[in-house]
Amino acid sequence: MSLSRRRFLTGAGGTAAALAIGAGCSTDSGPAGAAARPGSTTVPFEGEHQAGVTTATQQRLLFVAFDVLPGTQPADLSLLLQTWTTLARRLTQGQTAGNTAPAGGAPPDDNGEALGLGPNSLTMTFGFGRSLFVATDGTDRFGLAAKLPAALQDIPSFGSLDVLDPQRSNGDIGVQICCDDPQVAFHAVHHLARTSKGVLTARWSQLGFGPSSSTSTKQTTPRNLMGFKDGTNNLNGEDRAAMTEAVWVGASDGPAWMTGGTYLVARRIRILLEVWDRASLTDQQTTFGRKKLNGAPLSGSTEFDDLDLDNKDRDGVPTIPLTAHVRLAHPTTSGVKLLRRGYNYADGIDAVTGQLDSGLFFIAFQRNPATQFVELQQQLAHVDALNEYIKHTSSALFAVPPGVAADGWIGRSLFE
Amino acid sequence: MSLSRRRFLTGAGGTAAALAIGAGCSTDSGPAGAAARPGSTTVPFEGEHQAGVTTATQQRLLFVAFDVLPGTQPADLSLLLQTWTTLARRLTQGQTAGNTAPAGGAPPDDNGEALGLGPNSLTMTFGFGRSLFVATDGTDRFGLAAKLPAALQDIPSFGSLDVLDPQRSNGDIGVQICCDDPQVAFHAVHHLARTSKGVLTARWSQLGFGPSSSTSTKQTTPRNLMGFKDGTNNLNGEDRAAMTEAVWVGASDGPAWMTGGTYLVARRIRILLEVWDRASLTDQQTTFGRKKLNGAPLSGSTEFDDLDLDNKDRDGVPTIPLTAHVRLAHPTTSGVKLLRRGYNYADGIDAVTGQLDSGLFFIAFQRNPATQFVELQQQLAHVDALNEYIKHTSSALFAVPPGVAADGWIGRSLFE
Repeated sequence: MSLSRRRFLTGAGGTAAALAIGAGCSTDSGPAGAAARPGSTTVPFEGEHQAGVTTATQQRLLFVAFDVLPGTQPADLSLLLQTWTTLARRLTQGQTAGNTAPAGGAPPDDNGEALGLGPNSLTMTFGFGRSLFVATDGTDRFGLAAKLPAALQDIPSFGSLDVLDPQRSNGDIGVQICCDDPQVAFHAVHHLARTSKGVLTARWSQLGFGPSSSTSTKQTTPRNLMGFKDGTNNLNGEDRAAMTEAVWVGASDGPAWMTGGTYLVARRIRILLEVWDRASLTDQQTTFGRKKLNGAPLSGSTEFDDLDLDNKDRDGVPTIPLTAHVRLAHPTTSGVKLLRRGYNYADGIDAVTGQLDSGLFFIAFQRNPATQFVELQQQLAHVDALNEYIKHTSSALFAVPPGVAADGWIGRSLFE
Repeated sequence: MSLSRRRFLTGAGGTAAALAIGAGCSTDSGPAGAAARPGSTTVPFEGEHQAGVTTATQQRLLFVAFDVLPGTQPADLSLLLQTWTTLARRLTQGQTAGNTAPAGGAPPDDNGEALGLGPNSLTMTFGFGRSLFVATDGTDRFGLAAKLPAALQDIPSFGSLDVLDPQRSNGDIGVQICCDDPQVAFHAVHHLARTSKGVLTARWSQLGFGPSSSTSTKQTTPRNLMGFKDGTNNLNGEDRAAMTEAVWVGASDGPAWMTGGTYLVARRIRILLEVWDRASLTDQQTTFGRKKLNGAPLSGSTEFDDLDLDNKDRDGVPTIPLTAHVRLAHPTTSGVKLLRRGYNYADGIDAVTGQLDSGLFFIAFQRNPATQFVELQQQLAHVDALNEYIKHTSSALFAVPPGVAADGWIGRSLFE
């Protein structure tokens, strides 16, 4: 275990002389405080569930996945999760990771790159991959195999839609970091990496912006990189009944340690923009089943009009085509509800084609991926008109444990 | 040449039924209008110089470099630059690239991903690489060899500091896109790529945030990813005398077509954060020559105190070490002034080491790179204490032609 993490845990750096980020401003502000000073808004860290799931989507994403290094013991892992809980508790509430200016010859506990920026609604949401429980060869790496959730199965292939890069997929531990400032998000990842040195190695990360979906009735619907409003029919985080039905693992679902948790599916979906740009507006609209400019369903006139899936034109042709994305994805057709919480991405230039490597980093939360994301995607895989314009280039699934109480830590229900 | 560009130029898509981005809001607002609606601020496109140089740094960068495809004729290039001028003139002033909802079976001229977001102080700054004038084998590719500026020389190697990736370096044409919203920046790059299809291929791109430096007396000094305030002693864009002295190519400098232009140097500088994190605060501060928390020089007490390079402690040791970055980079020592305008970057995980690939995308504008950036970097290359913590991983140099009048286009002075 690294020096900095030990110091952090023992409090030598973690509590003494810690400076609030954005010194001089209130860090306990809710939405009302936000108006007073940009960046000062905080999202509560403690609760029945982890933050960052039903939280209204912030403007930036930085997702990072880690693998556990060989030789790590279960006690190292639980200690790390306690360290990270302390870190997340501090950063999300607008404090530094620790002492930015220690006396003597010590390195600062906090590197200071986010000083003065405020927490910007930072959330840090932690999840465990299947490989943490059982290695691909079946090894019980950390004595956790008996606690593997039945729902934490590998996501099956979706045929030619999948061009997955295994190095950008899955991982032992995943952390979704969201906030309204990219430097604050970077600061969080930096200190996650720093405090896990010697225990974990970073596997992949993904930057996102937008967001691509709204998750709250208080938000206007953003546009994805195909130019369409995204999230009009998404679940809303404020809808507690829907969250209980579709997102949170119930006591009867099992395993017990996941009660109050959820499952996070991430898919990096590259948009073939050069093909999309040559599609007519009509083709684009029939692909989605919505009007591009105002987001209304093709059967309606304003964005939030209900989909009329039975509507037909004078020739009896469905107004919303049978292959339209909104028809196939709609719960009426698919029987599936999930909470989408994705971000747009722009990752530079494809070295082979010179085309933009950009698209959607799809994230969805659900109670059971097998009956929700996987079921839905299998329905979409061979018929959705959208498939002509996209490729899935990475895939990840993480079991997100429940939230923590004042004396709790992330994953305690799994490790104790 | 692609259909969409032809339509754009002939006005079939470029003028008819064009919608303002952020319809309903003023798009001619200056700073005063910004308070009325976030994102509505515009930077003038026309002028003696291109925008995006002395413009106060916006929050986001998306830099993209293109190469000209084989078989392209000089007339194709000048036509493309006229297309791009029309595009930049529209996007920077809050308009769409063209018709978002054409009648009939045509693809939209504008894909719509930035609808409703506002221009967000968008600037698009264009430059030409040495390879546009002469190929590496000496070929005069487009009849421009006689117009090659003497100042547009390849940047020499700086020894072991350079770990340059040629695929992320240089290029025939470079475009610096800056604004306060990453989706608006993406929209601009997307439509640059789209309208240049068949003439150019994208070579590399770089996302940045921060910025890492202030360029205006109206800005507070931001922090770089090493946690230090960056840009305290930078030139200010408002300082016209300094811009004339250090940034703008004068009539006597030559060639004539570059009068009012400048040279853009870009260096992707990876910060070895894992090493930096282990350095003591004292080491970090003597590396820079400044105090980390408040940015004051080690010889002073507040950020904007002048560097006292002669100050010594009781033992006669210089307070600002002889190898400190601020001492070596300061004009008093180096004799060099330039306008830094860089951004922080976070490009994921190094596949070999699992470390964060993050740092500074350094950009500097100057009148003559040989006597400014190259001269300065050669002075720093073997003594700057900062070199222990950084590697340069890409390099680019572009000749940025002057700005355009109401009837002008970018690069006209070169092509006519």
